[in-house]
Amino acid sequence: MTTAPSDKLKLELRRGVLVLAVLASLRDPHYGYSLRQQLQDSGIDIDEGTLYPLIRRLADQGLLDSEWKHASGRERRYYQLSALGSERLEQLTQEWSALNTALSPLLRPTNELESD
Amino acid sequence: MTTAPSDKLKLELRRGVLVLAVLASLRDPHYGYSLRQQLQDSGIDIDEGTLYPLIRRLADQGLLDSEWKHASGRERRYYQLSALGSERLEQLTQEWSALNTALSPLLRPTNELESD
Repeated sequence: MTTAPSDKLKLELRRGVLVLAVLASLRDPHYGYSLRQQLQDSGIDIDEGTLYPLIRRLADQGLLDSEWKHASGRERRYYQLSALGSERLEQLTQEWSALNTALSPLLRPTNELESD
Repeated sequence: MTTAPSDKLKLELRRGVLVLAVLASLRDPHYGYSLRQQLQDSGIDIDEGTLYPLIRRLADQGLLDSEWKHASGRERRYYQLSALGSERLEQLTQEWSALNTALSPLLRPTNELESD
């Protein structure tokens, strides 16, 4: 066991959100590093060892298109949402919104004066 | 492969949310079926094959206390958040809130009139 159970819950919570954040960010073209920067600027910290395999997985699933481009003197592989990826992003955003609507009232702290 | 990639993303998105929903609901004592009903009433559908193992996992991690109680002529095992569970719920709720704050602006549809 390499991960404490308590961390595992947090990782599970983050995993789905990260997919959504990556798909949404890739409506605009990014290469790996610039995507990571954009996510960090949004307040989502994700290490390279998590982000890069995730990008490849989404590309393998046909959700991202990619092409090599010359920029700032270097060849970089740019990724962007494919038509299928846009469709999935829309579906997942709806799912996210529905989950949030359901979850919000549950998370509201119960009034401690009322208990017992 | 038993799950389509597209379903897998949705499942990943749901998994973390379900943990949070279950922990939050178990601030009040519930047995399996009554918990499932409460979640359904909140708009969170979860089948027994997912919910019951999740409850056992959280109990094994010490996040839930349980006791057998006689109610409506039957013995039922009631679960409720332990002190450790309350602590974890608070941490995860904060994490959730931070993720949501970061994600919301990313999910906002880009203004199509602005592109190109």
